[in-house]
Amino acid sequence: MNYKFSDRVPQSDTDPVGVILKVAGDPKVMSFAGGLPAPELFPVEQIKAAANKVLTEKGPAALQYGSSQGIPELRQVILGRLAIEGIKTDIDHVIVTTGSQQSIDLTGKMFLNEGDTVIVEDPTYLTAVDVFKSYGAHFVGVAMDEDGMRIDALEEALKNNPNTRLIYTIPTFQNPTGRTMTLARRTKLVELAEKYDVLILEDNPYGAIRWEGKNLPSLKSFDKNDHVIYMGTLSKILSPGLRLGWVVADPNLIKKYTMMKQSADLHTDSLAQYIAAEYFAANNIDEHVAGITDLYHKREQIMINAIDKYFPKEVKHSNPEGGMFLWVSVPGVQDSQKLFDAALKRNVAIVPGDPFFGNETIPGTFRMNYSNTPEAKIEAGVKLLSEAIEEVMGK
Amino acid sequence: MNYKFSDRVPQSDTDPVGVILKVAGDPKVMSFAGGLPAPELFPVEQIKAAANKVLTEKGPAALQYGSSQGIPELRQVILGRLAIEGIKTDIDHVIVTTGSQQSIDLTGKMFLNEGDTVIVEDPTYLTAVDVFKSYGAHFVGVAMDEDGMRIDALEEALKNNPNTRLIYTIPTFQNPTGRTMTLARRTKLVELAEKYDVLILEDNPYGAIRWEGKNLPSLKSFDKNDHVIYMGTLSKILSPGLRLGWVVADPNLIKKYTMMKQSADLHTDSLAQYIAAEYFAANNIDEHVAGITDLYHKREQIMINAIDKYFPKEVKHSNPEGGMFLWVSVPGVQDSQKLFDAALKRNVAIVPGDPFFGNETIPGTFRMNYSNTPEAKIEAGVKLLSEAIEEVMGK
Repeated sequence: MNYKFSDRVPQSDTDPVGVILKVAGDPKVMSFAGGLPAPELFPVEQIKAAANKVLTEKGPAALQYGSSQGIPELRQVILGRLAIEGIKTDIDHVIVTTGSQQSIDLTGKMFLNEGDTVIVEDPTYLTAVDVFKSYGAHFVGVAMDEDGMRIDALEEALKNNPNTRLIYTIPTFQNPTGRTMTLARRTKLVELAEKYDVLILEDNPYGAIRWEGKNLPSLKSFDKNDHVIYMGTLSKILSPGLRLGWVVADPNLIKKYTMMKQSADLHTDSLAQYIAAEYFAANNIDEHVAGITDLYHKREQIMINAIDKYFPKEVKHSNPEGGMFLWVSVPGVQDSQKLFDAALKRNVAIVPGDPFFGNETIPGTFRMNYSNTPEAKIEAGVKLLSEAIEEVMGK
Repeated sequence: MNYKFSDRVPQSDTDPVGVILKVAGDPKVMSFAGGLPAPELFPVEQIKAAANKVLTEKGPAALQYGSSQGIPELRQVILGRLAIEGIKTDIDHVIVTTGSQQSIDLTGKMFLNEGDTVIVEDPTYLTAVDVFKSYGAHFVGVAMDEDGMRIDALEEALKNNPNTRLIYTIPTFQNPTGRTMTLARRTKLVELAEKYDVLILEDNPYGAIRWEGKNLPSLKSFDKNDHVIYMGTLSKILSPGLRLGWVVADPNLIKKYTMMKQSADLHTDSLAQYIAAEYFAANNIDEHVAGITDLYHKREQIMINAIDKYFPKEVKHSNPEGGMFLWVSVPGVQDSQKLFDAALKRNVAIVPGDPFFGNETIPGTFRMNYSNTPEAKIEAGVKLLSEAIEEVMGK
């Protein structure tokens, strides 16, 4: 049969990032390409104990259909995570989602009509771009510097695009750059959203993993008139496999999210929700996150030190204070795919920068992940990568 | 803030079925309204053993990000379920979804543009109607009789609606009617799909739960040119809380589903997938399904006997050979909501027929569920319901 797809389906059958991640999955390739947490830190024994307890004490409820908004026990746990971000709220403001990807998808579905504009950081999380595109959105990328999204460029973009419906931002340890938006820019960003009456979608998957600098309040904590929709997740602090995320917004909006979620998948896995709630009841999540933070910091330092030792001096990189990624710019290189190819020839994988941009790309850029590579292997990988960079730079 | 929603969001904040199910959830109400499996049959101990084994033997994989298409172990299990339906295939033809609701949502998103037509059985599964509406589809309802969708009416509908993109059907133990499409109609339906070059979305959540008559082959088993997309689920035979469903189609189409699923929620809960695969490896699912079938049959017989004993003779009901629902028509009643109200006054809940229809409703209809009410309570509930019916009929 000759399928006639809707306009939402990408024409191309090739998913460039899928191809990269597949290649990077080859066991002989050292991959700095993915975005996976370190699996050796998953609290497997504690999750097993939680699963046992949940199935012993409330097996039928954990295996039955449940509320589209999520179980109250988990929404209660989420309030504790929100308090760290300066958000004081109640469980009526929270819906549990099947991971942050679903939070993004439901938001796109709810707010974007064909031809609407979404403002994103340039570069930004590429799968969010795919989602918003599938709902017919145009993109306007706003330039960043080491302090996050540039607010002057944002106001310019808002002025020039009156049909902007959403500003999508990852203010802390941004994917792909690892950069963090300053406090001054955070307050200013929320003011601009109010002034131009557009919504901010604040995505904060990495915020808890900080080894340097002070924790900054979330955009949501400055939100007076419900212009900020906040998203969080357990993927980076507990387990991505469980697919547990959340959206925080005013209760009327959470009702709409709940209706849309019901259409999307009825509700999030009941067993996973009960297990997560029980894990939080029985364990100290802050200690666990401290362990993750220590390990990622160690790996990041090894990576940065190796970069400073081996990469040509002209090459620039971000200096993340937390999170999972850093961002590299190689001056004079026009085609970042060449960097990927040259690295892969040496069995090292990175993600070339192009797919992370909503509009025009910044050439010669790529993303590196340090959370998922054993300490002993990082330096050798960076050394090989430096040879690839030198080859492409024509050194 | 004054939210501006996309056209996909229902204008109304009231979800009529949500209201009914909420009311029906009141512990003092005897509910024939829901569609829940009997939780006392969930194999809690076996799932606990499976969770233990999975977390002991492959904890890190079960808690890590996974493939958007689903783990091969579970897709292998699904092949066994498909063989029962006469579908011989391989795991490249299968994607794991976050329950059937997601299978419907992805299908709507992939195939429906604004103004396209979806042909549905009248009445049909109401949440499917909501999903297709959210993608801008029009509905054409095709009349049913006790043998399922009427094929003459279907051909008429196909002729009159050349922009039909999808025929959505639940051929076996249909929701809400409990009716099963005959073998002759099944073959004819697939022929018509080929003749008019439209896709069939075959939804089969209840097929395994049969106590009478012979198992009928699925529409997919007659499909020569990829005109049938088949959907299945573990919700009714193992656990709905785990949110595990699947779509079966040709591998090129499964690739598109996989891309769309990646946008929707990255992948289905890894732990739930591993637990389900391990459950199937360690247990005899057919024995388990036989236990479910026995209990639902017992409850259905009690309900039918009580209906025949207490309901006015003019009232008609379907006689399901399996599944979870039966369908009641009360002649002379124009407003089925009145039946709901009169029943609720007596602390009994049913679902009035109106929301199940794509277009014009058949008045005086309602759906009854028998899978989730203890045997000892059914007769008393039906007796109260008979009083409600008599009141509305003016007897």
